[in-house]
Amino acid sequence: MRTIITLTTDFGLKDHYVGSMKGVLYSINRNIDIVDISHDLDSYDIKSAAFLINQEYKYYPKNTIHLVVIDPGVGSERKPLLVCSNNQYFIGPDNGVFSYILKSSNDTEIYEINNNKYFLNEVSSTFHGRDIFAPVASHLSLGIKPGEIGEIYNSPVNLDIEDCIESGNTIKGRFIYSDKFGNLITNIPSALVKNNAEIIVGNIIIQGISNSFSSVKEDELLAIKGSSGYIEISVNMGSAKEKIYDDYIKIRN
Amino acid sequence: MRTIITLTTDFGLKDHYVGSMKGVLYSINRNIDIVDISHDLDSYDIKSAAFLINQEYKYYPKNTIHLVVIDPGVGSERKPLLVCSNNQYFIGPDNGVFSYILKSSNDTEIYEINNNKYFLNEVSSTFHGRDIFAPVASHLSLGIKPGEIGEIYNSPVNLDIEDCIESGNTIKGRFIYSDKFGNLITNIPSALVKNNAEIIVGNIIIQGISNSFSSVKEDELLAIKGSSGYIEISVNMGSAKEKIYDDYIKIRN
Amino acid sequence: MRTIITLTTDFGLKDHYVGSMKGVLYSINRNIDIVDISHDLDSYDIKSAAFLINQEYKYYPKNTIHLVVIDPGVGSERKPLLVCSNNQYFIGPDNGVFSYILKSSNDTEIYEINNNKYFLNEVSSTFHGRDIFAPVASHLSLGIKPGEIGEIYNSPVNLDIEDCIESGNTIKGRFIYSDKFGNLITNIPSALVKNNAEIIVGNIIIQGISNSFSSVKEDELLAIKGSSGYIEISVNMGSAKEKIYDDYIKIRN
Repeated sequence: MRTIITLTTDFGLKDHYVGSMKGVLYSINRNIDIVDISHDLDSYDIKSAAFLINQEYKYYPKNTIHLVVIDPGVGSERKPLLVCSNNQYFIGPDNGVFSYILKSSNDTEIYEINNNKYFLNEVSSTFHGRDIFAPVASHLSLGIKPGEIGEIYNSPVNLDIEDCIESGNTIKGRFIYSDKFGNLITNIPSALVKNNAEIIVGNIIIQGISNSFSSVKEDELLAIKGSSGYIEISVNMGSAKEKIYDDYIKIRN
Repeated sequence: MRTIITLTTDFGLKDHYVGSMKGVLYSINRNIDIVDISHDLDSYDIKSAAFLINQEYKYYPKNTIHLVVIDPGVGSERKPLLVCSNNQYFIGPDNGVFSYILKSSNDTEIYEINNNKYFLNEVSSTFHGRDIFAPVASHLSLGIKPGEIGEIYNSPVNLDIEDCIESGNTIKGRFIYSDKFGNLITNIPSALVKNNAEIIVGNIIIQGISNSFSSVKEDELLAIKGSSGYIEISVNMGSAKEKIYDDYIKIRN
Repeated sequence: MRTIITLTTDFGLKDHYVGSMKGVLYSINRNIDIVDISHDLDSYDIKSAAFLINQEYKYYPKNTIHLVVIDPGVGSERKPLLVCSNNQYFIGPDNGVFSYILKSSNDTEIYEINNNKYFLNEVSSTFHGRDIFAPVASHLSLGIKPGEIGEIYNSPVNLDIEDCIESGNTIKGRFIYSDKFGNLITNIPSALVKNNAEIIVGNIIIQGISNSFSSVKEDELLAIKGSSGYIEISVNMGSAKEKIYDDYIKIRN
């Protein structure tokens, strides 16, 4: 069985960076399947990458290896990490990109990657995706053990992830991610919200949760239980991001 | 032999959506090859998706499964479809996205996908690509029969696809697709057009069909027999879309 | 072992072009791995494609086949080429796109592709990527010999690639590539530059080579030994391209 190695970067697809990483992966182990998750993240957007990787890994088979390279601190003292969690592997820089995964799991082992036997012979200062993270991922897919790649590490960088706050029948939350369609994803779990709740964003009030985008007229705002498990604000056939500039949201059940 | 599953969506590559679908596909059947056709379609652009999928499927081996998820009506009453045509499979929403395929083939079976045994356990209202279409595609690749996935369905949504109109030596048509380079693809089959024809778009007249983009000067308009089998209007080293705002075209043989 | 076929084009991912090429590749040989290098090159940007392919091929296993289709002259007299170099294969138009590879290697054989037995049955005037280059690549992966595909060819188009000029302790060079982050890559090999060198671009002077982007403040310019082996000008958490409009650079060791 081929191991799956997924790639999530802010490298774009204009340059040779992603292609070089794939070459390194295949040169060490031809028996893998490489899956592009996203290369179109905004440059240096660690917070969105952290959210995104936590959304998609659950759908992958166990032993999948996820390479996450949003790495503005490349070449500095920031450490390269290997996170083992939920029977999957996550490889990337210690800058908070694994915050959601570390927060949501209590069965996690973290290693500082430091055995340069598994790096490329020459390591550049600007492209550890190619020179450290990709070769380590590919060696891992060959069966090298985490303990051979690095040493247990207990103080990873964690982003400040705000949870929503419930008090009485009111939930206060904020927007944490906006997608390509302009859907605004909140930090309010759908399970907390009644279908007839009142949703307040700035001076906009939305009555009730919709069952589908098309349950309101085109270009109208709606609230919906999104596919990530959180409440989202959307516009039927349009972009909520273009209509809403607030950071905060309040829901009354 | 691995089955090929192709993906055509308007999801973009910024978010986790395509990555989540690929995870679902691989979790059900590791023995597939996933091929990205396009994720950069304009949001909700069903008509372009319908044209595009009809252009590319012919180049795939038989038994290929094509997932086409441009789905503004997700979560509403619109049905999920499985179309069997030309020894290939097409899976997506019933919103017209299969219009060209249904029109061009008379050996077609359509199924309404309704056996939730082949869906993910939880089906969201906003992401049937991940929760219905991907798992159904992957089960199909394992050998599940169309008749187990759904029931024969005979009233699919069809877009109004206009054919060109011939009268005497004149052909009237329209532009149906513009590509990344700004080439404007018409609905006039190249086979109907003589090489010395006169091409009229608004008050622009082009004399004759060119053999290559570079047979006119840089930045000049030309007409050419395009790779889709239709007449196209192009600009050498430039974009015809930036020069032409008409919807219609007339050709005199 | 599956052969790897890589794709580098300016086709974008909006249209069916890349998808059609992949279908042709798989229809001739199911036993390949297709790797997308880049499809987001600027339209007709032969020079960047030439630089990029030379950067990434080194990381691939031997016998990899690289399809490079930036082809504004498609349908004209420009020839289709197969270049064998460094135990890898390169297929694309004769327009200079292989200039860096031809310059950097002295173990190279070039063939004009002319045996239409390995083309699709119908060859369009506008899409040789699908009709000539892809089927030839896939036949090559099946073990067809270069000599059966075409004939030795000795006069490929070469771009004018300027080398930097050393005189005394001064090196004069120019910018040759800018990436998605706005890093400006020069033609000055890092090996020629001392860490305490003075870097001059227009009226900007940078003192010394940095070890990492974050060794200067955010939004500040720096010079660094880049991952391509050349000196680069960058901005920490920002874009050098937005700050520098000069074409030339001078370094004093």
